[in-house]
Amino acid sequence: MTLDTQDPWLLTPGPLTTTIETKQAMLHDWGSRDATFIETNQRVRDRLLAIAEAEDSHVCVPLQGSGTFAVEAAIATLIPGDGKALVLINGAYGTRMTKILDYLGRSYVTLETPEDVPPAATDVDDCLSSDESITHVLVVHCETTSGILNPIEEIAGVVASHERSLIIDAMSAFGAIPLSAKAVPFDAVMASSNKCLEGVPGMGFAIIRKSVLEACQGNAHSLSLDLYDQWVSMEKTKQWRFTPPTHVIVAFDKAIEQFEAAGGVDGRNARYRNNARILIEGMRGMGFETLLSDNLQAPIIITFKMPGHPSFDFQGFYDALKDKGYVIYPGKLTVAPSFRIGCIGALGEDEMNGALRAVKETIETMGVPSGSPAENS
Amino acid sequence: MTLDTQDPWLLTPGPLTTTIETKQAMLHDWGSRDATFIETNQRVRDRLLAIAEAEDSHVCVPLQGSGTFAVEAAIATLIPGDGKALVLINGAYGTRMTKILDYLGRSYVTLETPEDVPPAATDVDDCLSSDESITHVLVVHCETTSGILNPIEEIAGVVASHERSLIIDAMSAFGAIPLSAKAVPFDAVMASSNKCLEGVPGMGFAIIRKSVLEACQGNAHSLSLDLYDQWVSMEKTKQWRFTPPTHVIVAFDKAIEQFEAAGGVDGRNARYRNNARILIEGMRGMGFETLLSDNLQAPIIITFKMPGHPSFDFQGFYDALKDKGYVIYPGKLTVAPSFRIGCIGALGEDEMNGALRAVKETIETMGVPSGSPAENS
Repeated sequence: MTLDTQDPWLLTPGPLTTTIETKQAMLHDWGSRDATFIETNQRVRDRLLAIAEAEDSHVCVPLQGSGTFAVEAAIATLIPGDGKALVLINGAYGTRMTKILDYLGRSYVTLETPEDVPPAATDVDDCLSSDESITHVLVVHCETTSGILNPIEEIAGVVASHERSLIIDAMSAFGAIPLSAKAVPFDAVMASSNKCLEGVPGMGFAIIRKSVLEACQGNAHSLSLDLYDQWVSMEKTKQWRFTPPTHVIVAFDKAIEQFEAAGGVDGRNARYRNNARILIEGMRGMGFETLLSDNLQAPIIITFKMPGHPSFDFQGFYDALKDKGYVIYPGKLTVAPSFRIGCIGALGEDEMNGALRAVKETIETMGVPSGSPAENS
Repeated sequence: MTLDTQDPWLLTPGPLTTTIETKQAMLHDWGSRDATFIETNQRVRDRLLAIAEAEDSHVCVPLQGSGTFAVEAAIATLIPGDGKALVLINGAYGTRMTKILDYLGRSYVTLETPEDVPPAATDVDDCLSSDESITHVLVVHCETTSGILNPIEEIAGVVASHERSLIIDAMSAFGAIPLSAKAVPFDAVMASSNKCLEGVPGMGFAIIRKSVLEACQGNAHSLSLDLYDQWVSMEKTKQWRFTPPTHVIVAFDKAIEQFEAAGGVDGRNARYRNNARILIEGMRGMGFETLLSDNLQAPIIITFKMPGHPSFDFQGFYDALKDKGYVIYPGKLTVAPSFRIGCIGALGEDEMNGALRAVKETIETMGVPSGSPAENS
């Protein structure tokens, strides 16, 4: 469809390239209290629960705003004033959770590793053994900062063995990296519409253990971000408390329909793995190096070390790729000069190969014979 | 355009009927850090400031989420921990501001009048004279609960004479009821994308006096809702701190472009006044009565008293109107049994007359000869 292909492909962690079907779902208007919209909203909530295999144990509470709104809301709603969090940090999104806790005035300790090192379950075990006052553990599933996949199953096992509560920021993993409530004991998982489920941005959601949420009245610091209030009200009236982003929700419904038709989590995982493989092999073929070893790499976003050749200029590289129709993502890591290329969104082999051709042409034009990084970078 | 006219017309306070041009603007995807989107975002902020004639004195800070998110964020960012609010209440949105203050743990007093009575400037004057600890006055411009227009100029004058800070929830008035920073001294005005500017829902914004906002660091209770942080970061990077609702913003840009082409506030006001006139005259012609006298009525949403005839059934009335293509809004007032019909959105004479025909047919089918309310209702 021409309308769609005129846009550059977004090789970013989101907002992403979405299908034209998803966008066309927004060509209508809905009354937020009307039966037609209420049905769509319920279907979205039910399908999100099913993706996490959490229908029997959890509830899905959607929230207006970006993913961070859902993360802040879940932390504020679940952790009571006298609670204490252990935050596992290996990137910007782990750090952001401590910033949220600072605003909330909640106690916390951190377990921090470099951006290219996952937290070790044994270290989490030690932390929980040595500090009985820790009530909640906060972890990011895929840290979008580097693209690293954190060992969520092992961490969940340790947290459960200590009978603490696990809260997972699964923003850039949900729907593409398997996460089943039946296999991984968690109390809350947060994600948003505009990541691996390939909707447009404007809402997040939290999948929260029902028995836990039932005890959360009065915890939240904010009316807008009170997920207990949002849940109780939505169960009662089937409506959102405050104006919902109707178009975003209907597009999300359409995106999830396509997600299911394409094989659900397995299908999404397979396509993204293939995208990541093509991208990494192709970039390595041009001398580029990935920050992470393959065993730590999630098939979501790939961090490449900055080329060391003196003729390489990142802004020129970024602009030339955009002119050729591919928007990549500037890096902001501390461990190494780098940039990132995403492999999520409505993208497949053609787009990944096209991006590789654009990279090749661009560095050739720049007079950069190889993307290899400077020594020791 | 057929895609559009298949939808029922939304005679509600929002989400509204938007034009097909506004919706079609969402048929693309944008990188949130890319120059194309950044330009659009800046244009929206600049135009919103200009609508309030506030370019020289205020800044525009947009926020993800519904209008309530922007209201909570503005209250939390502007009122410091040792501040005290006077909240003027004559409907659900005034009450909601006290709920927000409860969450925030901020002190407040209220001045409450019935839903069909505006606050008197003299009473505000008395409150401020007798309580020097009040730092901020919170008022709703048009209370969507009844559709009443509160006397914002008089109240602003009193608040200014006492050198207190005025915060206006102008959600359902902004863009349709004139409000100029040059004429009305306010420190903050909040509104959203999906009211009289006729965008789709998913973002709000606050127009805040720059000299006031500069002193607000550290006030907010929430990372996501911290408008000081949002503003400082957006000024520095031109980007949103957290993923913006890109499609909503681009649709809002397109909606504001049409707003300006149609004569700005004057044009919008004239069309809505005409809609309201047609609706009120037509309904009165069928025996219906408005809750408010004409001098209190904003041309936004009209509250009609519930007909007294025993054959009238509101759910049947609502459903029949929807089947005929018109979605109205159930009332939730305390002063009288009632329902509401909105006259905002991409609607004109044809749609208002169409709604009147649908009402006429519906009550005739019901065997209701007149919409006149029961005595004493």
